[in-house]
Amino acid sequence: MQVAGAIRNRLPAICIDVTSGNGPYSGTTSRSLLEISLRYPVSEVSHPSLVYLKCGFQESIMETESHSTFLLEFHTEKNKFSSPDELIAPIKELLEKDIGEVKEVYRRCSDESVNVILDCDMKSIVTLQLKSSGLVLMNIDIDGQHSSTFNQELAKKFETDVKGKLAAVASKSICPIKRGGPLDRFRYLTSSDERLLEYDVDHVVADVRSPFQHIQILHTINFGNLLVLDDLQNLAESDLVYTETLIQRGKIDYTGKNILILGAGDGALLWELLKEGPNMVTMVEIDETVMKLCSQHLRSACGSALDSTTGPHHQIIVGDCLTELDKLKSQSVLFDFVFSDLTDIPLSIKPQNKEWQFLLDVMEKSLSVLKPDGQFLTHGSGVSSVQSLADFESHLNNLEPPVEFKRCQAFVPSFMEDWVFYQVSKTPNNK
Amino acid sequence: MQVAGAIRNRLPAICIDVTSGNGPYSGTTSRSLLEISLRYPVSEVSHPSLVYLKCGFQESIMETESHSTFLLEFHTEKNKFSSPDELIAPIKELLEKDIGEVKEVYRRCSDESVNVILDCDMKSIVTLQLKSSGLVLMNIDIDGQHSSTFNQELAKKFETDVKGKLAAVASKSICPIKRGGPLDRFRYLTSSDERLLEYDVDHVVADVRSPFQHIQILHTINFGNLLVLDDLQNLAESDLVYTETLIQRGKIDYTGKNILILGAGDGALLWELLKEGPNMVTMVEIDETVMKLCSQHLRSACGSALDSTTGPHHQIIVGDCLTELDKLKSQSVLFDFVFSDLTDIPLSIKPQNKEWQFLLDVMEKSLSVLKPDGQFLTHGSGVSSVQSLADFESHLNNLEPPVEFKRCQAFVPSFMEDWVFYQVSKTPNNK
Repeated sequence: MQVAGAIRNRLPAICIDVTSGNGPYSGTTSRSLLEISLRYPVSEVSHPSLVYLKCGFQESIMETESHSTFLLEFHTEKNKFSSPDELIAPIKELLEKDIGEVKEVYRRCSDESVNVILDCDMKSIVTLQLKSSGLVLMNIDIDGQHSSTFNQELAKKFETDVKGKLAAVASKSICPIKRGGPLDRFRYLTSSDERLLEYDVDHVVADVRSPFQHIQILHTINFGNLLVLDDLQNLAESDLVYTETLIQRGKIDYTGKNILILGAGDGALLWELLKEGPNMVTMVEIDETVMKLCSQHLRSACGSALDSTTGPHHQIIVGDCLTELDKLKSQSVLFDFVFSDLTDIPLSIKPQNKEWQFLLDVMEKSLSVLKPDGQFLTHGSGVSSVQSLADFESHLNNLEPPVEFKRCQAFVPSFMEDWVFYQVSKTPNNK
Repeated sequence: MQVAGAIRNRLPAICIDVTSGNGPYSGTTSRSLLEISLRYPVSEVSHPSLVYLKCGFQESIMETESHSTFLLEFHTEKNKFSSPDELIAPIKELLEKDIGEVKEVYRRCSDESVNVILDCDMKSIVTLQLKSSGLVLMNIDIDGQHSSTFNQELAKKFETDVKGKLAAVASKSICPIKRGGPLDRFRYLTSSDERLLEYDVDHVVADVRSPFQHIQILHTINFGNLLVLDDLQNLAESDLVYTETLIQRGKIDYTGKNILILGAGDGALLWELLKEGPNMVTMVEIDETVMKLCSQHLRSACGSALDSTTGPHHQIIVGDCLTELDKLKSQSVLFDFVFSDLTDIPLSIKPQNKEWQFLLDVMEKSLSVLKPDGQFLTHGSGVSSVQSLADFESHLNNLEPPVEFKRCQAFVPSFMEDWVFYQVSKTPNNK
């Protein structure tokens, strides 16, 4: 059920499980659900499905201001200063000017560095790290309520002033890290090579934990709704290029073919393949909650593909892909194409020491249900994950029986990265 | 002069001005230039042009390890803890386990927050902010030499452990901010709406200050060489879509037309327009250094367009666009198209209180040298800079004589944003 007249605003939505008839929330009204949602914080509600509240009631607790952390660095000349105070004194002076009265509350000295803690007018704690190399690192924490008195503009000016006073040869202040505000813990995601990316999330559409993973759907101005699984960007409404590159649209003919999809719970791959005139697409996805949420909130990507588990040209099996691959193999079913579009982190029930083992098992079993002239299609990683891609290709090169593969890449908007895709065929010798 | 046999590596390059024959570096050899480059840090060398050193000599000073700053937040239940120590004690315990012996060195209490400074085994200073709302903010600074003992993997585990101990309803740790390493101050750039983006910079191609701006060319794995002017992403080798959308390729016929370009020192706009069969493209760019650097390092974007200031279908004027517009107006020269592709921040000599005034002056003067049926084409900002775009459109709507405009947008890879472009025409009434 969807609460009627829910107020569209910039606040996180809350999903609560009411589908299990004997659960603690069965038979509750939308009003009492609202009350529950206030008592049971979002991330503690397990395996929810689709009671979707987006309500002004949360405003009072959620609409807190962001606290800001400013991180600065200055490169000074190593041997220019005879004592740390020659560096610290001018910094104190500028802090006094821009923030308020400065009290030094701690200093620790070693051969490699001097660490100094300054308490600025009860408004901010400032930490200074003076490295023996001449590097000066500074952290300035600003309380939300003081964010107007020390903002990014002032920080930039402060940086220039400090750079001048220290005669630093280079300096950098990065734009403030926003923390503790209602959307702040949703803003920051990581690229495939562990770079920090801040997203323009303007509201949280869903934030739930299924038995398998942490599922978030975040609305961003640039990418529309963005599906995030276990803190990894999975697919956004902007990302048709992901699916089109994965299926090699225009280069492969799927007419009348039998296709197996592993994963791809967002439904976009199924939706795009159904446009290609296949005979039958079988999709195996472990997480029903992902499918339900995407069917509702990622509809521009998955269309009506997830509305029904069966159709004239598709069937969706809710289950573990390894188990289902074994079943298919035992039934001697063969496919023209197998797609692996699983999340990067194995969803296996038993924890794997080697992350790769899961993917290798998937690949090996996939090849065993593939026709001799069939293709296995999968995604790799971001182009900047050079080592990770090399490892994957080395695994492909070592498969028995051997395979041939091609790779291509496409810039996926919501990933903010060029992504690599693989097309794997059994070698001619094994045909 | 380019130093022969320069070693291509991941270290910053250094540019030094040797073109002014009477300057302090005139007559120096490449070896002494290298020595100069070590003594005169990059950013202090003014108005350099194209002596380009990329040398292993710098390794010893530049190849320092990154220091890491981990920022975490925990959302706890406001009224659950009777004293701050109920929160601080378990955090201390986990820090002892993961980093080392913890000594509390400072505590400040107010109605709104408790701030605590912990010194962990002389390896790390940890600051804790406990807010009365139940929010806990934590900063952990890790010295480069200890980065293997507390890395991102451990930080993630630490986050989970603290979340559990505090029974926090939500938590977040963002991937560590890298600081002080040779490439760290080049990594972090900002989107148009002041979001933090980390780039996969693997070497610095150029880093110089011209009389007009700070010019950087950074090599990234995802986007190739990226031109950065005054800390703003300008154009990368990946960004043909920027130029194609600006010129509305395929939608506007430039054959035999007379075109004026303001700015666009990277040369990509000139290069692409020259492919469209124009009669004459006149380009006015104030900063010769940008053009020289792009001609050398952004060649896949600008081709040979900047190799010569005149050609059969183009001329490049090095000068201030407002001055040149006045000249053109006084000569009654009219253009079919005027492009404004200036940096977002005014390059005017006199500082402008209102940033907009410069752009408005450009626009007004541009319209005055435009044929009645001509078009003024320019870029706006990122789609998430909603207010900034609205302001710009409001200015367009208030122009006298009035104009008509259309907008479109395209995702520009190196900006990691959807960018807005405008096509402005004098209204039919003024034709």
